Amino acid sequence: MRIVELTKDTMQNVLEDLLKRSPNSYGEFEGRVTEIIQNVKNDRDKAVFDYTRRFDGADIGAENIRVTEEEIQEAYEQVDKSLVEVIRKALVNIRSYHEKQRQYSWFDSKPDGTMLGQKVTPLSKVGVYVPGGKAVYPSSVLMNIVPAKAAGVEKIIMTTPPGKDGKINPSTLVAAHEAGADEVYKAGGAQAIAALAFGTESIPKVDKIVGPGNIYVALAKKAVYGHVSIDSVAGPSEILVLADETANPRFVAADLLSQAEHDEMASAILITTSRELAKEVSKEVDAFTAELSRKEIIQKSLDNYGYILIAENMEDAIDTVNEIASEHLEIVTKDPFQVMTKIKNAGAIFIGEYSSEPLGDYFAGPNHVLPTNGTAKFFSPLSVDDFIKKSSIIYYSREALEPIHEDIIKFATAEQLTAHANSIKVRFEK
Amino acid sequence: MRIVELTKDTMQNVLEDLLKRSPNSYGEFEGRVTEIIQNVKNDRDKAVFDYTRRFDGADIGAENIRVTEEEIQEAYEQVDKSLVEVIRKALVNIRSYHEKQRQYSWFDSKPDGTMLGQKVTPLSKVGVYVPGGKAVYPSSVLMNIVPAKAAGVEKIIMTTPPGKDGKINPSTLVAAHEAGADEVYKAGGAQAIAALAFGTESIPKVDKIVGPGNIYVALAKKAVYGHVSIDSVAGPSEILVLADETANPRFVAADLLSQAEHDEMASAILITTSRELAKEVSKEVDAFTAELSRKEIIQKSLDNYGYILIAENMEDAIDTVNEIASEHLEIVTKDPFQVMTKIKNAGAIFIGEYSSEPLGDYFAGPNHVLPTNGTAKFFSPLSVDDFIKKSSIIYYSREALEPIHEDIIKFATAEQLTAHANSIKVRFEK
Repeated sequence: MRIVELTKDTMQNVLEDLLKRSPNSYGEFEGRVTEIIQNVKNDRDKAVFDYTRRFDGADIGAENIRVTEEEIQEAYEQVDKSLVEVIRKALVNIRSYHEKQRQYSWFDSKPDGTMLGQKVTPLSKVGVYVPGGKAVYPSSVLMNIVPAKAAGVEKIIMTTPPGKDGKINPSTLVAAHEAGADEVYKAGGAQAIAALAFGTESIPKVDKIVGPGNIYVALAKKAVYGHVSIDSVAGPSEILVLADETANPRFVAADLLSQAEHDEMASAILITTSRELAKEVSKEVDAFTAELSRKEIIQKSLDNYGYILIAENMEDAIDTVNEIASEHLEIVTKDPFQVMTKIKNAGAIFIGEYSSEPLGDYFAGPNHVLPTNGTAKFFSPLSVDDFIKKSSIIYYSREALEPIHEDIIKFATAEQLTAHANSIKVRFEK
Repeated sequence: MRIVELTKDTMQNVLEDLLKRSPNSYGEFEGRVTEIIQNVKNDRDKAVFDYTRRFDGADIGAENIRVTEEEIQEAYEQVDKSLVEVIRKALVNIRSYHEKQRQYSWFDSKPDGTMLGQKVTPLSKVGVYVPGGKAVYPSSVLMNIVPAKAAGVEKIIMTTPPGKDGKINPSTLVAAHEAGADEVYKAGGAQAIAALAFGTESIPKVDKIVGPGNIYVALAKKAVYGHVSIDSVAGPSEILVLADETANPRFVAADLLSQAEHDEMASAILITTSRELAKEVSKEVDAFTAELSRKEIIQKSLDNYGYILIAENMEDAIDTVNEIASEHLEIVTKDPFQVMTKIKNAGAIFIGEYSSEPLGDYFAGPNHVLPTNGTAKFFSPLSVDDFIKKSSIIYYSREALEPIHEDIIKFATAEQLTAHANSIKVRFEK
């Protein structure tokens, strides 16, 4: 990995490099996605079945689009029993963490008879999209369903593309069932997103769609946004390790590689105050890479977006961490808790040398769907918050309104909204 | 106002009518907005000054783009003292309500040395856009600034277009100063949004942009979304009154008109179980409209999107309320609190006959920036939540990781992410 001195200029370069990963030119796909959405809106099930035949090569109709109890049982028979056990253990932690995120309605009343409040209501129906294809991530199924469940969503509807045989990947199905998906449909791509947004004879309309997907899925989600809500579009994965001379270089190297292996656009960065550590981590990275099954992806990702930055002091290093606003941040210093209090921007913060990033991906409990590409400056991890919404509550008695009614009339009149003023006046007319 | 029996069909018609208000064809504006953004990105201040000269007819440069202390003092001299007093009284309520929305970081630790948590951090810098032109809404300035302030945002940067004389409307400026804007800049339209999103020599880059605006502003916000965060785009205003025979028809009529006066796309709907009330409200609406200064707007809005719906029973009425998911909902029945508990979808809920909608616009405390166009099914009022973000915190000791490390390795291996598995393995190698 390249080792660079951290200066204002090198930091600027790193930031610009990272932002290059935001894809911009979607032109060619956009027209096709718009067409798919329009067709599903018009022809509903029929359009979904047509596209499934065309894109997935599977013959799906109204009679077999919804996954049955038997298919779920079949999936359990195909999945390694010990993996099911691991999924269950992970779920205990993921549920426990997300249940702590629940928010409650509150009210506040005063002796003059006013009551103000905020009512928290879960969304009614949520759609969870799960990609098909070779790479299967049951952990991602858990992470998208559990917060919706913890929020109290009435119905969680999952869609995922079938294979040519009309079947869903068994570990996806087992994960969905364990996490508590209420209904699973065999549909993928932009057609599945359109079906969830507008409803078809078979697939119910939802209020919000979450979950990762390819460029068609991402564009379709963007297109239906406003009609339904969506989660934010995830960018390539990122890890930032902030370490001093106390860090174990083998641990740091292994953790950098755990994100570099995701894809060629992934970014792995070490910021350290120790020149010695920088050199050793670089060596360990090379040694590990040679042995790893995904070495080609890793090498490209490190060449493009991998850096070891040497900072003059911990303050500069922390400033840079806050500028980069990484998806994952590991703090491996002699006082990691103290450093953590100074972190403003990061999706998830891993403290100390045993809090390895993959622990968070699979097991600890916090969500692994995190803001990428610097958006941790203003976005949050996927959470229960994404599956609730709030209503303001206002109650005033006559006694409470009377003493202030002239003030409201004055304010409304200043804004030239005379019907607003009238609605207050009429309540106190003689 | 037209009186219609509530049936499945009529409800469907009303819903379709309301959704027609979502504007779709922005094609002609999009190209121009993209060009403005690109120019501001490249030429920064210079581009902003050029556009301000062209669109606002004002000669603004680096020396006078930022509003000075003297200009603020000047504004105070021009604004009616009693309006300033009303603004201050309203601010006490608005602050008090929004401070109750604050969320706190939490941590949870276990004897085995794990600690999980969620860190809440305010956004660093927020941009508040305030439209110029003839209609001036100081209440909207308060409602956009206060939640950011209550969240703990470090710097609130307001921009608003200057008049030809290079001055900002005095009541906008007074409201901004009272609410606590840190810096105010004279810039409007897409050029102001681009300046806030990318920064110029004069205008600082922010993390999030909120506030209403015309079509250029709305499209510019949409275009910079992802690079910064934005609030949701507000649609035309809506009021829904749910009333039974106990309601005062004059109050109901006046409240319907308070929203109908906003613009020709605004919607005012009464749902009632009382045929008698329906008739009386319709009469009162006609009587009031004849007297109101904005009667032409009101008439068009009522003709297009005004309805009195007669429901067979309160249950049907409540179901329809939840389907429409109105921005403002007034409940004027004999047991309004009980009805409120059954409301799932509404931006703000006004309970009882003295909780008139304009009370919420100006004075009660809850935010008046609310989800419109049925989006109350999944969106919330503007709140402190919009100006904070969260980071997950994960700390595991060696003792805590050891007993589960094989489980994580199994899960990672099942997903074929061998570098993930390696990062756990390396911590327990002999």
